[in-house]
Amino acid sequence: MTFADEDDITESAARRWATARPGRAAEVMSALVRHLHAFAREVRLTEDELTAAADWLAAAGHACDGERQEFVLASDVLGLSRLVVQLDDRLRDGATPATLMGPFHIDGSPTVPYGHDMSGGAPGEPLFLTGTVTDTDGKPLTDVVLDVWHADADGAYTSRIPESDEVRLRAKYRTRQDGTFCVRTIVPRAYSIPMDGPVGALVRTTDIDPHHAPHIHCLVDHPGHEKLVTILYQQDSEFLDSNVVFATRPELITAFTRHPPGPAPDGSTLDRPFRHATYDFVLQPRADGRR
Amino acid sequence: MTFADEDDITESAARRWATARPGRAAEVMSALVRHLHAFAREVRLTEDELTAAADWLAAAGHACDGERQEFVLASDVLGLSRLVVQLDDRLRDGATPATLMGPFHIDGSPTVPYGHDMSGGAPGEPLFLTGTVTDTDGKPLTDVVLDVWHADADGAYTSRIPESDEVRLRAKYRTRQDGTFCVRTIVPRAYSIPMDGPVGALVRTTDIDPHHAPHIHCLVDHPGHEKLVTILYQQDSEFLDSNVVFATRPELITAFTRHPPGPAPDGSTLDRPFRHATYDFVLQPRADGRR
Ligand SMILES: [Fe+2]
Ligand SMILES: [Fe+2]
Repeated sequence: MTFADEDDITESAARRWATARPGRAAEVMSALVRHLHAFAREVRLTEDELTAAADWLAAAGHACDGERQEFVLASDVLGLSRLVVQLDDRLRDGATPATLMGPFHIDGSPTVPYGHDMSGGAPGEPLFLTGTVTDTDGKPLTDVVLDVWHADADGAYTSRIPESDEVRLRAKYRTRQDGTFCVRTIVPRAYSIPMDGPVGALVRTTDIDPHHAPHIHCLVDHPGHEKLVTILYQQDSEFLDSNVVFATRPELITAFTRHPPGPAPDGSTLDRPFRHATYDFVLQPRADGRR
Repeated sequence: MTFADEDDITESAARRWATARPGRAAEVMSALVRHLHAFAREVRLTEDELTAAADWLAAAGHACDGERQEFVLASDVLGLSRLVVQLDDRLRDGATPATLMGPFHIDGSPTVPYGHDMSGGAPGEPLFLTGTVTDTDGKPLTDVVLDVWHADADGAYTSRIPESDEVRLRAKYRTRQDGTFCVRTIVPRAYSIPMDGPVGALVRTTDIDPHHAPHIHCLVDHPGHEKLVTILYQQDSEFLDSNVVFATRPELITAFTRHPPGPAPDGSTLDRPFRHATYDFVLQPRADGRR
């Protein structure tokens, strides 16, 4: 008769789940069994704790809807999302590193011209983001799509403002012949992850600060190159080190330099102070060699 | 700047979650982080797989309601529930081993006399379960509550029959002065775990048989002794080894012996064939020494 002792159980369970199809599922599921069991064994998990975990998972499931994915948030605050990005990273030759996509991207943002103001009238300090997109040989890449989105000066995302169908703080730019781009927007503010659900309840039992440092999401897409999902961070801002979702990477921090009223990077003249950040994105060839 | 490489991330995340309160939460959460990360690293989990996992968890959450706990089911089929029972087990001196509680217990079953037929008229082959409850010194225990519940001859539980408030196939017996008890019911059938949810979808990708061998749940409760949650299995029945929830333990298997019409264990005479199982439960003293 099987299942006579602790080791039996883990071996039996791993062997059973190794029959999952396809082969990748077999690998993932049997490893999941072994690691979950190792966790339970290490902490000598109790039946009450297992019940509490099941209740927590059910509550997190109920918090999920079309807009909100509490389990992605859980994975983010446990550092798992960032680890998985890192594991996927096949960085070479100075390519720009990837980081989390985050939950706030909206598909189908409008394509706008060089220097267009994507703030949609949202109040805040004007910010220009300029730079180039090149390949790993330094060759400028033309017609690269630079999909940009970020929070407003209160830390709110357009996708989280109820019943807003306004196009605000999100747009797609394209690089010019020489690989350059110019985004005009406003300086975003740090924001807290949603703390009103089961993940927030868990975070509240810790010393973890729930803020994500001020940042601008960029999805950089060009045929023949790996799609890059990354985030630019404002140098010297709060929460860079404590970033609740572990998304900060040193290579992604850039100065949002203050400028007095006067000539702006888009060629216009501003009658009030603004900030200017520069970032040069480097895309690497597609791993599968396709174009 | 932190979070520069893979190891950094795991260490940072484990350190952060080690601030959870109380201390037990710190231990459990930081271990969970380390084991989840070790799992992701071992299989080189991809972003698409992480997204698929979050979607699966959300679907499992939506499958949960007052009646159904899909995450307990998941824990059962991964062998985690059984492992946790085993870790909690401080068995000694021949005490009866525990196993899973399962999801079908109903609180507040009626207390019935020695030999009472708890089948509530459910069709099936009559089954008598007799035996004693003693302590680990062999001393008979009086007035022990033996809460019994099981599936019917079609493998269905009363708690899963929609809109049934019938008391059927569940009752509480009490041991007599000499520690003996006599349950009369019907022979239960094996049943499949619910296969219409996310757990079922996962099980279907494997060679795992979804059946739980024929069994009778027993919750044995007496002041001054550890409460025992266990399951008796029918000897030589199907699915003992393949038991989908890993609940079978060799010490819990007992013969359901066939008898011709005639004198029955409750003192009555039956005009048709019946079965008779015996089991002697041994309770151990409460670990905390209280009575
Ligand atoms: Fe963000
Ligand atoms: Fe059962």
